[in-house]
Amino acid sequence: MPHANMTSWKDHIDGLKNEINTSLEEFLTEKVNQSRDSLVREISSMIREYSLRGGKRVRPILVLLGHDLFKHHDRSVVRASLSIEISQSYFIIQDDIMDQSPYRRGFPSFHIEVQDKYFRGDPSKKRISENLGIIASDLADSYSHEAIISSGLLPEIALKGEKELCSIFEMTGHGQLIDVFSAENDSFSEPDLIKLHLWKTARYTIEGPLMLGAAISGTSEKLNDLSHFGNLLGVAFQLHDDILGVFGDEKKTGKSIKSDINEGKKTMLVLKAIEFGSDEQADFIRRSIRSGSVTDAEFDRVKKIMIDTGSLDYSKKLADRFVERAKKYLGKVHGNEEIKSVIGEFSDYLISRDS
Amino acid sequence: MPHANMTSWKDHIDGLKNEINTSLEEFLTEKVNQSRDSLVREISSMIREYSLRGGKRVRPILVLLGHDLFKHHDRSVVRASLSIEISQSYFIIQDDIMDQSPYRRGFPSFHIEVQDKYFRGDPSKKRISENLGIIASDLADSYSHEAIISSGLLPEIALKGEKELCSIFEMTGHGQLIDVFSAENDSFSEPDLIKLHLWKTARYTIEGPLMLGAAISGTSEKLNDLSHFGNLLGVAFQLHDDILGVFGDEKKTGKSIKSDINEGKKTMLVLKAIEFGSDEQADFIRRSIRSGSVTDAEFDRVKKIMIDTGSLDYSKKLADRFVERAKKYLGKVHGNEEIKSVIGEFSDYLISRDS
Repeated sequence: MPHANMTSWKDHIDGLKNEINTSLEEFLTEKVNQSRDSLVREISSMIREYSLRGGKRVRPILVLLGHDLFKHHDRSVVRASLSIEISQSYFIIQDDIMDQSPYRRGFPSFHIEVQDKYFRGDPSKKRISENLGIIASDLADSYSHEAIISSGLLPEIALKGEKELCSIFEMTGHGQLIDVFSAENDSFSEPDLIKLHLWKTARYTIEGPLMLGAAISGTSEKLNDLSHFGNLLGVAFQLHDDILGVFGDEKKTGKSIKSDINEGKKTMLVLKAIEFGSDEQADFIRRSIRSGSVTDAEFDRVKKIMIDTGSLDYSKKLADRFVERAKKYLGKVHGNEEIKSVIGEFSDYLISRDS
Repeated sequence: MPHANMTSWKDHIDGLKNEINTSLEEFLTEKVNQSRDSLVREISSMIREYSLRGGKRVRPILVLLGHDLFKHHDRSVVRASLSIEISQSYFIIQDDIMDQSPYRRGFPSFHIEVQDKYFRGDPSKKRISENLGIIASDLADSYSHEAIISSGLLPEIALKGEKELCSIFEMTGHGQLIDVFSAENDSFSEPDLIKLHLWKTARYTIEGPLMLGAAISGTSEKLNDLSHFGNLLGVAFQLHDDILGVFGDEKKTGKSIKSDINEGKKTMLVLKAIEFGSDEQADFIRRSIRSGSVTDAEFDRVKKIMIDTGSLDYSKKLADRFVERAKKYLGKVHGNEEIKSVIGEFSDYLISRDS
């Protein structure tokens, strides 16, 4: 154990998170102040509040860690790391409109906030509120690009980062396409799901941020091992997330434990319960994810089937296997050993967190 | 008349348009071929077809002209000019979802094409088709950024262009906010409308493309005069567009002449007909733009009121005044005189076109 005591990795992460939060507030306040139009300022302030109350900052933390593997970061790097955090507002404002979700992170969704603020919740103003949400998500998208291109990084470095960012967005879009179609696709299988997790979660949440950070360090190291690490960890992260989604504590996760089932999500838990279950169990799962609104008793039965068929166990073990393989690649990364150790500890946290 | 005969400006523009079309087809074909996933390729091909069948290429032509004022363009500049053309797909796919428009350019809107292709037009698949449209618009947005950052321009030049592009998108978003709210705003007035035209049309369609072109020429000339020119011309362009929208030939414009009225658009024609009209005329206009679906007879009466009150005349004269002021600024621009002349002729075309 060459590095550090039990708490030091956490202190390290908390330090990064503080830098990120300070920079994020600064940047979004600048965006609000840039316009003199009152309506633009209001919507821009809403994007600011919405982005600030998000929480864990996992993505920008990974940008900084990916960078710091190769070079100490400065303020410009922190500013650039905001791009991937702000993009989260862009994507989830849209997602909540697409999924018609009224809540996010324990607050009303963005388009619902608009409907409440401008139209006193008038249901006849649903479409216009959603349209304003879509435009706000476009603005958040612009802010995201601006955070990196106006970060103060050297032009060739900023451009490298921006290329990585666009490539991440594009793959996230590909993942979204597969995700939306999965509900329609009766033959949606484990390999399809792993592809979805790679594109929509791993690239966007873990591998992409690490690679973006490495790109803006200007390192000339080969990054294949770091990329494999990020992708494998990312899949494990999503498997864990889907377990939390059904078996977690909604007070801690901030989302309804029934929502994945009610939205008909074809998670690994669902696929394997259908595959391993009896005809009757499989049929019950199929009907539940199609129902749109399961009762408490039905939901309990879904969970029981996931446990009894070994589906829950399968997801847990699969996640562990992905983490184990991920760690091997992390070991091979050429970079600052202390940062590698922090990344390792942070990974363990990410796939064992309860919120 | 130092430069050229009557047709030479048109030949010049046609030459640019050919370069743009060749490069656009090349770029979008690359994007399709980059993915091996069949679903991604299908949606990407749909974006390709959708973008290629668009028409006039006004924006990328203006990028090239703005550039060529200061320097001859090469292939990288043409590639970079695609960004603003592809962004048009991003915006109009979204617009048609927001406005629930089934047609665009005489073809089904993107989300309707999705509904036809994947769900045989099944009306119960409306939401999922719109969601797929939103994701496709996100992809077009990524392509747009990629066109400029991967154009092959020098990094500091590409970054300058990308900054301009993001700033254009942001202002377009601000214009969209004002536009969406205008329907709800009973005190929406001429200055509000001019602001909307400046943000949503002038910046996005005329001034922004010219400035983007100038930015990627790397010129150190002051660009204020070019910017004023673009903004003033842009407002005239929109005023003319709104006249065409009501008094044009729908066979030529490719859009229903009733659509502006049925969508409740508060154009200058509408504002001034209300302002100049008798109480009874004003009231008829107000009711018509609120009705959502006017009869042929009602539509004829709307047009007659716009003529009789002097509203049509007001819009025409206002557009002329904006063009006149624009031309004065163009005269002051320091740049290649031949290109300035082409820009002048192209401007005349833009504000006298019938399609």
